[in-house]
Amino acid sequence: MTHEAGIPLGLKFKLLSDTAQDSAAQVVSDVVVGDYRDLETLRAFARDCDVITFDHEHVPLAHLRALEADGVTVRPGPDALAHAQDKGVMRERLTALGVPCPRHRVVSGPADVTAFAAEGAGTDGGDGYPVVLKTVRGGYDGKGVWVVRTEAEAAEPFKAGVPVLAEEKVDFARELAANVVRSPHGQAVAYPVVESQQVDGVCDTVIAPAPGLSEELSGEAQELALRIAKELGVVGHLAVELFETRDGRILVNELAMRPHNSGHWTQDGAITSQFANHVRAVLDLPLGDPRPRARWTVMGNVLGGDYPDMYAAYLHCMARDPQLKIHMYGKDVKPGRKVGHVNTYGDDLDDVLERARHAAGYLRGTITE
Amino acid sequence: MTHEAGIPLGLKFKLLSDTAQDSAAQVVSDVVVGDYRDLETLRAFARDCDVITFDHEHVPLAHLRALEADGVTVRPGPDALAHAQDKGVMRERLTALGVPCPRHRVVSGPADVTAFAAEGAGTDGGDGYPVVLKTVRGGYDGKGVWVVRTEAEAAEPFKAGVPVLAEEKVDFARELAANVVRSPHGQAVAYPVVESQQVDGVCDTVIAPAPGLSEELSGEAQELALRIAKELGVVGHLAVELFETRDGRILVNELAMRPHNSGHWTQDGAITSQFANHVRAVLDLPLGDPRPRARWTVMGNVLGGDYPDMYAAYLHCMARDPQLKIHMYGKDVKPGRKVGHVNTYGDDLDDVLERARHAAGYLRGTITE
Repeated sequence: MTHEAGIPLGLKFKLLSDTAQDSAAQVVSDVVVGDYRDLETLRAFARDCDVITFDHEHVPLAHLRALEADGVTVRPGPDALAHAQDKGVMRERLTALGVPCPRHRVVSGPADVTAFAAEGAGTDGGDGYPVVLKTVRGGYDGKGVWVVRTEAEAAEPFKAGVPVLAEEKVDFARELAANVVRSPHGQAVAYPVVESQQVDGVCDTVIAPAPGLSEELSGEAQELALRIAKELGVVGHLAVELFETRDGRILVNELAMRPHNSGHWTQDGAITSQFANHVRAVLDLPLGDPRPRARWTVMGNVLGGDYPDMYAAYLHCMARDPQLKIHMYGKDVKPGRKVGHVNTYGDDLDDVLERARHAAGYLRGTITE
Repeated sequence: MTHEAGIPLGLKFKLLSDTAQDSAAQVVSDVVVGDYRDLETLRAFARDCDVITFDHEHVPLAHLRALEADGVTVRPGPDALAHAQDKGVMRERLTALGVPCPRHRVVSGPADVTAFAAEGAGTDGGDGYPVVLKTVRGGYDGKGVWVVRTEAEAAEPFKAGVPVLAEEKVDFARELAANVVRSPHGQAVAYPVVESQQVDGVCDTVIAPAPGLSEELSGEAQELALRIAKELGVVGHLAVELFETRDGRILVNELAMRPHNSGHWTQDGAITSQFANHVRAVLDLPLGDPRPRARWTVMGNVLGGDYPDMYAAYLHCMARDPQLKIHMYGKDVKPGRKVGHVNTYGDDLDDVLERARHAAGYLRGTITE
């Protein structure tokens, strides 16, 4: 989708892809299949690139630093990306900046978790459980995240041998996301703050803007995201996933430094999409207007279902809703895998929500009429 | 741009291109370089295609008929395309359908032109000149079109050995275009009728919708385009270029059976773009909503100027207008060549027009501040 946003500017993309079947590899004409964990592969790839950017955060920082030492322009740079790669580094830095976060600590074993839990116990005689445990690296979409209720349950996350971060289980009213884009010379834009609804740890629906969010809290979330982008030296898109607590505060949950699922609505709902602005930022071009084009825009993720071929479902979805925007990724359909999303927009939130949910459900096969 | 519109549907495009440097060849990953005038090239290309469509009208009809005989699905089909390839065939058919056209006749030499002119002479003692002469095939952007004032001038168009169509020089108030899309099972949508402003025979600016156009004439133009699409069996996009006469009538000027310059505004100004709807039509998918998303949308063509590199101009254009939408084609810049376009939209037509004209002029190099 980043490539799609670059076509109108006449940009030439070169893609380093794990396999020739990856989504991006199906649409970019200049593809190198190779392993992003191998420095020499990266070096050979980067040789004729003006700038390198990413659609995930997993390229080893040491490799990115080596590329920079070679003179390659890497955006976002490794010093910023460190905070998206490692949740421990992220929590430490945000806390130092005074950014509100859930109570947290890097823990080294189940007994440590129990001690962490006890410090958060209230006056009700409880033990402070449940606690959220996360491997500091490699998780996404609920993978690498555990909610544990006892010390015995707390043993599991340590088995991978990756450092584990313990966090209080926040009693949140809902999840929000603040998406901003920042360019190398410091220009930045903030998209409207959105509500993100999760099902089984996976984002299901995004509503832009977040319904009923006070102007004050919305402004606070945007300022927070802009400040994080600046302090961490982010170049490109930054998604700040937030908890809105029941007592009206916001806490930072996660950071992502690339176009993000919570910003997919911008393709059809904003004047400039997150993909277009990410491309502009990494090229140090002036950023585009992030304002919404409709009163409400809703994004519904399409997960793989039982039917391997979703094309047949287009007929019904397009006939039912001529305004529907379908974005499929060309991925093989596997149950539960994110294989696309739909966007709807309009003046009536109930209608916009219903249309997005119907289309996402119909494409997955959970709605059949 | 058609490929760009197909990416979100997960469609796989295969491109037959004259050269590897063509605009589309730069962004489609599966490109065959070959000559569309060679039947065996077409046959080999078409073997694994579900459907064939076009971004120009020049593939020989006999070849398309041969592909159809092989079982290939060609949309639009050769019976429809005949009317976009040959202006003589088009005029004959439209006249038979009762569609208002300029007075016209296929002529065989300068004396014939003088006779044709005389038949249109008024009571002022004039000779009926000027007359518009067009080669029936191969013209575009003012090429293959002459406005002749004397029999001597009328000699030129016959030199190519292609049949020549004579037409009255219409005293038009402005040019309009009615864009419609029709699917194989007969569903059709009509975009708002636009005003198209030409400079030196090349489209310069398109305003959607056409300012001040009466609902009656607008409806008449849309109905006319829908009727032509149906009667000619068009599948996909049909652009009907029209003259609006000073006495309030509309006459058909030209037909194009593919996404058209007069519909480029739809990329940013309509719920579903002409490219997305052309793709849906040729795949026999339900069509998308053609309604506008803004009160006014203006498209400005970017012509090549003196500077071979337009990228530097992005900086100023994007900084000046964060809402500007740039669409460049990746073509080598040659003076006067269409190398891209810009779209602007908003509530204030003067502002929207100024922004489009400024950006188009700045990218060309005729405006420098």
